[in-house]
Amino acid sequence: MVIVGGGFAGLYAAKELGRAPVRVTLIDKRNFHLFQPLLYQVATGSLSPGEIAAPLRATLRDQRNTQVLMEEVTGIDAARRRLYLANAWIEYDSLILGTGAANSYFGNPWETVAPGLKSLEDATEMRQRILYAFEAAEKEPDSEIRRQWLTFVIVGGGPTGVELAGALGEIANETLRRDFRLIRPQEAQILLIDASPRILSSYAPELSDKAERFLMKLGVRTRTGVRVTSIDEQGLSFRGPDGVSNRIATRTVLWAAGVQASSFTLALAESTGARLDRAGRVQVEPDLTLKGHPEIFATGDMVTLTQDGQPVPGVCPAAMQMGRYAARRIVDRIKADRLNGRAASSPFRYHDKGSLAVIGRAAAVAQFGAVRMAGHFAWLAWLFIHIMYLVGFQNRVLVFIQWGFQYLTFSRGARLITGVQSPPASSSKSG
Amino acid sequence: MVIVGGGFAGLYAAKELGRAPVRVTLIDKRNFHLFQPLLYQVATGSLSPGEIAAPLRATLRDQRNTQVLMEEVTGIDAARRRLYLANAWIEYDSLILGTGAANSYFGNPWETVAPGLKSLEDATEMRQRILYAFEAAEKEPDSEIRRQWLTFVIVGGGPTGVELAGALGEIANETLRRDFRLIRPQEAQILLIDASPRILSSYAPELSDKAERFLMKLGVRTRTGVRVTSIDEQGLSFRGPDGVSNRIATRTVLWAAGVQASSFTLALAESTGARLDRAGRVQVEPDLTLKGHPEIFATGDMVTLTQDGQPVPGVCPAAMQMGRYAARRIVDRIKADRLNGRAASSPFRYHDKGSLAVIGRAAAVAQFGAVRMAGHFAWLAWLFIHIMYLVGFQNRVLVFIQWGFQYLTFSRGARLITGVQSPPASSSKSG
Repeated sequence: MVIVGGGFAGLYAAKELGRAPVRVTLIDKRNFHLFQPLLYQVATGSLSPGEIAAPLRATLRDQRNTQVLMEEVTGIDAARRRLYLANAWIEYDSLILGTGAANSYFGNPWETVAPGLKSLEDATEMRQRILYAFEAAEKEPDSEIRRQWLTFVIVGGGPTGVELAGALGEIANETLRRDFRLIRPQEAQILLIDASPRILSSYAPELSDKAERFLMKLGVRTRTGVRVTSIDEQGLSFRGPDGVSNRIATRTVLWAAGVQASSFTLALAESTGARLDRAGRVQVEPDLTLKGHPEIFATGDMVTLTQDGQPVPGVCPAAMQMGRYAARRIVDRIKADRLNGRAASSPFRYHDKGSLAVIGRAAAVAQFGAVRMAGHFAWLAWLFIHIMYLVGFQNRVLVFIQWGFQYLTFSRGARLITGVQSPPASSSKSG
Repeated sequence: MVIVGGGFAGLYAAKELGRAPVRVTLIDKRNFHLFQPLLYQVATGSLSPGEIAAPLRATLRDQRNTQVLMEEVTGIDAARRRLYLANAWIEYDSLILGTGAANSYFGNPWETVAPGLKSLEDATEMRQRILYAFEAAEKEPDSEIRRQWLTFVIVGGGPTGVELAGALGEIANETLRRDFRLIRPQEAQILLIDASPRILSSYAPELSDKAERFLMKLGVRTRTGVRVTSIDEQGLSFRGPDGVSNRIATRTVLWAAGVQASSFTLALAESTGARLDRAGRVQVEPDLTLKGHPEIFATGDMVTLTQDGQPVPGVCPAAMQMGRYAARRIVDRIKADRLNGRAASSPFRYHDKGSLAVIGRAAAVAQFGAVRMAGHFAWLAWLFIHIMYLVGFQNRVLVFIQWGFQYLTFSRGARLITGVQSPPASSSKSG
């Protein structure tokens, strides 16, 4: 059997199959599993790329039934049960897909002016832009342009946008406070905007309020009910809830507003007749298989699925649960085949274990069912959970130490501007 | 006064001037100081870029007389005492230059096929190529091409080449040993070649022998007295000491053979009349100033200087000593000016504190004057000295922990292939 994608869905599926009597091939175009929830910490210089990534081969080294292949899957022929790679194809009997999501700009050409945050390259690009903006301000004689360099706009008030905005607030107010001679980083304007009536709209309203207050303390202003109409290298235009158009002059716009399924789902839909939603996500049966293709499971971010009238959210716990579920279904079928029986298939159920978003030092919001928390305790829960789920013992220790240092000193160790040839605003994306 | 370059020479000069009654501007095109002696550990996946780099602003934050400017110096007008930046110029009364060195291919167009190791981008590019070679071998059906992917040639048997070769030997024999299913990484051929009659030619001959034996244990073969005649994407041709031409079929050639001064020295020579040697290094007076320009000091790798008939080597301790010396000369002059006197100028003396090269786990060679060591004790000395000189307490702790893990488990935490779009052999350098 074949797994495509070494994200949370694919990796947890592979682990679940570690002792199953089946040969597993895990295909990913990268050689590592990425701990996406901490990507914003790379983008804001707290952590290094290596600390939130684990080599897939090393992670799965002891599963002797599992082979890792570093390849990009370019297409699928579901009738012949083949996956196409760059220069070869591979056959499968059953297939678990977890090809993930990419940034979505809702059809607008804003990718180069407003980088998103889905890959390690995205994160180092974002880090470069944030740090370079302060450097550019320091050497800019024109006060108007200096103000533009010191203005940061984050589009999207979900957890990623809130976490980015909070980290930016800490960078400006603490980390860089004494580093410059001509500018005062504390004067940076940080603006978080969102189309919904409140930030963290998937959380309880009182937690949105709390988060907004935490952000305000870090100098971050929020504007909600706002629609972005254009973004260019000198600024961002939007229409407010009152319908009035506005423009913010800024050199740095960060995108945390939307995702869409990776383009592989188009090939998948064509070959299987699966239906896609507006964001390119695949509609699956209650057991995560594709209609008419019980041998193909789709999991994680690439899937659209409704449960009790609510969409299952595109978060890591959902991806892990889907990956494990699909793997168990395959094991059940193998067992049933041996007994000449048929595997009973209870539908996938997403168990919401709660949501957490961190805003800054000792400031987080958390929602575990009816239990809602904000402040120190939520922050400790966040720390604990993220350290525990990080893949690789070495990464856990390193991240723990980095966070310890940061707590004590506000310093951010991985504050590097790499890969700059020209000012980022005019350079092409270089990874 | 102005310092150009935040390497060892420039940073130590800036630190020496921290309490001097003078305004200091340190200009670097990067925002960090790079601990170059550990660059090969980034290239071989042991350390992350952030762990061997320290943000210049943070390092010099408490020196209130010092300003850091992230700019590339593009030219100099020594008569008007001006440095040209991208869109501005800056005036100086005295100047310390430490613009460093770049890879030298002795006029051959081998830069894209045989990457060198001077910057963090070089290191991640090299890491990508090394790791990708094993991935490509794993999926290659043709046994001849597979062997080419598993053949690594390192050109240059100085400390960098020896350390790279040793680390590659450990990667193949230990780190990746159980990670693949179709290839055996231990079968990788690693070849270290050098034009001199022995590797580590600046060390005592018995240490060269020791190093060669350490390398052999890690599966690295050495060939000396060898001249490279061509390198392309399928292999490397060379002429042996017997004059016979040979070719090695390989997909990965790493360059550690030569450096030349950065191209800034050309502009410097034109403006000041300073003479350059074949590697573009500036000839300086015994007090490190340029002839006819007592206000300009040149330090570090960019300088050629003879002491007691021997060239001062282009190593970090020499750069630190030169940077400090130049800074002290400037302080002396300020003091002398106040007293209406003239500063006595004793010439610069390089104090050779010894040389160390590490080959692998508990295997290093060291030479401290007449004392020569090989093995465990030299390795411990190497560890201790490198940890101590790393800039930034946080980096020291992180590197110490990474090395501890690696010692215990042979794992290398930063084993990421980032920035790959196509197989590296055919892609352009992307940083």
